[in-house]
Amino acid sequence: MYDRIYNFSAGPSMLPVPVLEKARDEMLNCEGSGMSVNEMSHRSKVFDKIAKDAEALVREVLNVPENYKVLFMQGGATLQFACVPLNLMKTGRADYVLTGNFSKKAYEEGQKFGDARVAGSTKSENFTRIPRQNELELDPNADYVHICFNNTIYGTHWDYIPETGNVPLVADMSSCIFSEEVDISKFGLIYAGVQKNLAPSGMALVIVREDLIRDDVPKYCPSLCSYALTAKNDSMYNTPNCWSIYITKLVLEHIKATGGVKAMHEKAVRKAEKLYSYLETSKLFKNEVSAESRSLMNVVFRCPDDEMNAKFAAASGKAGMSNLKGHRLVGGMRASIYNAMPEEGVDYLIDFMKKFEQENA
Amino acid sequence: MYDRIYNFSAGPSMLPVPVLEKARDEMLNCEGSGMSVNEMSHRSKVFDKIAKDAEALVREVLNVPENYKVLFMQGGATLQFACVPLNLMKTGRADYVLTGNFSKKAYEEGQKFGDARVAGSTKSENFTRIPRQNELELDPNADYVHICFNNTIYGTHWDYIPETGNVPLVADMSSCIFSEEVDISKFGLIYAGVQKNLAPSGMALVIVREDLIRDDVPKYCPSLCSYALTAKNDSMYNTPNCWSIYITKLVLEHIKATGGVKAMHEKAVRKAEKLYSYLETSKLFKNEVSAESRSLMNVVFRCPDDEMNAKFAAASGKAGMSNLKGHRLVGGMRASIYNAMPEEGVDYLIDFMKKFEQENA
Repeated sequence: MYDRIYNFSAGPSMLPVPVLEKARDEMLNCEGSGMSVNEMSHRSKVFDKIAKDAEALVREVLNVPENYKVLFMQGGATLQFACVPLNLMKTGRADYVLTGNFSKKAYEEGQKFGDARVAGSTKSENFTRIPRQNELELDPNADYVHICFNNTIYGTHWDYIPETGNVPLVADMSSCIFSEEVDISKFGLIYAGVQKNLAPSGMALVIVREDLIRDDVPKYCPSLCSYALTAKNDSMYNTPNCWSIYITKLVLEHIKATGGVKAMHEKAVRKAEKLYSYLETSKLFKNEVSAESRSLMNVVFRCPDDEMNAKFAAASGKAGMSNLKGHRLVGGMRASIYNAMPEEGVDYLIDFMKKFEQENA
Repeated sequence: MYDRIYNFSAGPSMLPVPVLEKARDEMLNCEGSGMSVNEMSHRSKVFDKIAKDAEALVREVLNVPENYKVLFMQGGATLQFACVPLNLMKTGRADYVLTGNFSKKAYEEGQKFGDARVAGSTKSENFTRIPRQNELELDPNADYVHICFNNTIYGTHWDYIPETGNVPLVADMSSCIFSEEVDISKFGLIYAGVQKNLAPSGMALVIVREDLIRDDVPKYCPSLCSYALTAKNDSMYNTPNCWSIYITKLVLEHIKATGGVKAMHEKAVRKAEKLYSYLETSKLFKNEVSAESRSLMNVVFRCPDDEMNAKFAAASGKAGMSNLKGHRLVGGMRASIYNAMPEEGVDYLIDFMKKFEQENA
């Protein structure tokens, strides 16, 4: 009926086929309402239930403690780079750990609003590993410590949750949310652009401890950036991204029905281990990430030279795989293998890489 | 195959059925890419063409002059309430004309960033009309004059474009964009939340004269609120709301194929005139808006008492029409009859109102 390809895009990314099929089937009449979810008042009973279900599913699937609010906000992770300092900076000091491009962007945005400082960085090692706890120079009086839990471009992931004492830990989990069990209580705030592992682009999921939500944000904080206002209005201070909330609900129903986050993680481990195992033995492809810092979601690799990288990217495209070309900042290749990437997709990729290696030995 | 109802929602609102059908048919494989548009990298060739086509169609269908940028931004009109002062306030003074709830919200948001003042208001008359030019007290040194061109809650529309001299005119056109021909050159900036007449929620369309875009925004301006950054990155500083951009393209193709904005306006006039003509003769339903200020998109009316209003709202729901209940701020009823509402929908409503009036004489 339709030809699907293996889409290794870092984001927006693959969605589960049963979710797309349900969205398709409901496109002109959602849940018997006589209209598409795209035409529905966000204040209607039908949509209100969709949004409440989506929130309840986030809570259930991620095991969110009672004293945390779950918010759906527009603007993706990038607007959160501003929302975090706008809402959480009180003394005006915050620590940022740099582990790649997006943590750097968050840090630069933080500098607009106060004294954001670098509390750790592996830039000198091309971000090929996550810094160890003893390498972090944390300010005990900072308003928060910001980390990026999974780094899509560099293919790394925090293998531990840093200890920050009484200072709230803030984590950008855009590219790993719902792929692993997380002890939410270790974090003050978690945010995630939804377009990688959860839903269509144009929204961020925010999970924030209630005591960090405050009314006395700076006067110049746009209303739409206020956690207090968003929480008070159940994420509907204005018309939200209804489509993204709807697909969030469908994806979480699908995750729940297929074993929850635990099963997602087991599948992610299986997929990533296959790929890393092959990379360890390959004579053509190399992955430079330290073993303990390897991402389960984004596996980066490269050939000895750019010409071969380009040849691989082109050949893989012709073989029915898309978006294997690495980010323009680092070159090489990147296979983003989020929840919705089937294991067959990874098997297919590895078979293709082996064949390519033989042909280009 | 599916039962559709007449959806009079003020927003999100009806979309053209052919657009929904195309979106449905492409849900698992968009333009032969082997993936849904919801799974597509925003940097991919296929999506890049979709976004460029959407922008080109905005320019063509609305006849946008060369010296204006067309931007797609997240956050709807509400984030624009902040973006406008963040980007356009230089002296820190701006004029706001109050004609309803959303112009008031824009004004209140503007006050966060400078000296926003009221340059005109019809609040004392329950916002039942648009102020005349000679009622406006405009500051010749203001950075801009802000108006809301169509007021969804109060059912009014500016019947003229106010003369503001050298001061740029900024208009929120969320609920009338693409329903009428507009001389863009009379405005410095036009913005519109897309969820009424254009596309699914979670995005604003911004049309801004190039000389008003500046790099020296205040330090505390979130990156995602900067027109300069958005323009420099072709609306892709971060992952945009791809779904909304895609539907924007489909809706504009549909508008173009069915006669353009001129035909949309003619149809809107026919629909609204029928409804207003009946309201003028009705002994049960009243519309209190001054004739010259009547909106073609949102027709408000009410019965003599709240009990009858509630009875009508409930009965209309049972008769296959939704969202005729007025906004909670004003009560009564409201029929939002945007481009995608077929003429038969308005005929059906009028017939129902006549019957209801007979039965409740």
